[in-house]
Amino acid sequence: MAESNALPLVVLAENFAKLPGIGMKTAQRLAYFVMSMSDAEAKAFADAIVTAHETVHECKICCNLTDKENCPICSDSRRDTSVICVVEGPKDVTAFERTKEYKGVYHVLHGLISPIDNVMPDSLRIKELLARLKDGNVKEVIMATNPTVEGEATAMYISRILKPLGVKVTRLAFGLPVGAVLEYADEVTLFKALENRNEI
Amino acid sequence: MAESNALPLVVLAENFAKLPGIGMKTAQRLAYFVMSMSDAEAKAFADAIVTAHETVHECKICCNLTDKENCPICSDSRRDTSVICVVEGPKDVTAFERTKEYKGVYHVLHGLISPIDNVMPDSLRIKELLARLKDGNVKEVIMATNPTVEGEATAMYISRILKPLGVKVTRLAFGLPVGAVLEYADEVTLFKALENRNEI
Repeated sequence: MAESNALPLVVLAENFAKLPGIGMKTAQRLAYFVMSMSDAEAKAFADAIVTAHETVHECKICCNLTDKENCPICSDSRRDTSVICVVEGPKDVTAFERTKEYKGVYHVLHGLISPIDNVMPDSLRIKELLARLKDGNVKEVIMATNPTVEGEATAMYISRILKPLGVKVTRLAFGLPVGAVLEYADEVTLFKALENRNEI
Repeated sequence: MAESNALPLVVLAENFAKLPGIGMKTAQRLAYFVMSMSDAEAKAFADAIVTAHETVHECKICCNLTDKENCPICSDSRRDTSVICVVEGPKDVTAFERTKEYKGVYHVLHGLISPIDNVMPDSLRIKELLARLKDGNVKEVIMATNPTVEGEATAMYISRILKPLGVKVTRLAFGLPVGAVLEYADEVTLFKALENRNEI
């Protein structure tokens, strides 16, 4: 921002620019927008940041974000705790919950193994996952990381640790997305769809 | 956000979603990002919102945003106060300042006349502009609103008020953007470029 801008506005824009996907131009526009808010709205926005940051933490069991001791899913006695779906982040939990079909529980890794980004297995919640398997109640662990290089590598890494423990480790099915047009499917997806074909 | 999310996170995401150009999915992603910030960073972000909102206000003279009594441009004795460049918003001031060529002062309207958005002339800083013309020091007012329907209408509206006061009112030149490819210029721009051609 040029020096024609007031310093507090520059500081605010710089804070917005730290957010993912927000460049300096957008950050500047957001800072101007904050100026057009009412006092109450601006205060509520600032409070929401502080409150969320102070009260939300990881669930003691599944590492998903929650403001309670345990998250609502881990606290729900109707969920099947013998099946754990391992995901990269909290937003993946939201995605699975939207299906309204999954009745098991989750484990949130908070990242994927990615040496290039300096994310090593130690920085993921893998030991927390292993701790959940100790009582022998868990029958299946579903590796539900993204079908990317990092997602695949993480799924492989964890499954190699889990298999010797005698727990069934599964991976999400790969194939054609529902509603997709076959003509536009990439080769790998089409090959996976062919390979994993089911009898009808 | 599904109920699997902690309430403070939902509240934070809803606050982000109020910002222009940020939908619910992005807002959710930003809320998660705030969780990954350090305590100090989150606090600084919240403080920046409150500080900017509390300390930044409109310059008494040009209505640009500033945290001082008058903005740095109006306070700069080297600026030519006989030329006023009228712009829609503070970001336009920044754009002109980047040219490092304009030595006059500005007047920020804080919007454009747009009946469809219920923005009427009364809600713009037009009377503040008229007040600046009273002492007879101003020789020229440059209408530098965007070349859009609203920008044109606002420029026309203000110029009709100013002309009877005997002040010279000018409009930014329209033509080919520097570095543009003629082939891709739209008809209106090309017509304006032809119409406003200069002898070389």
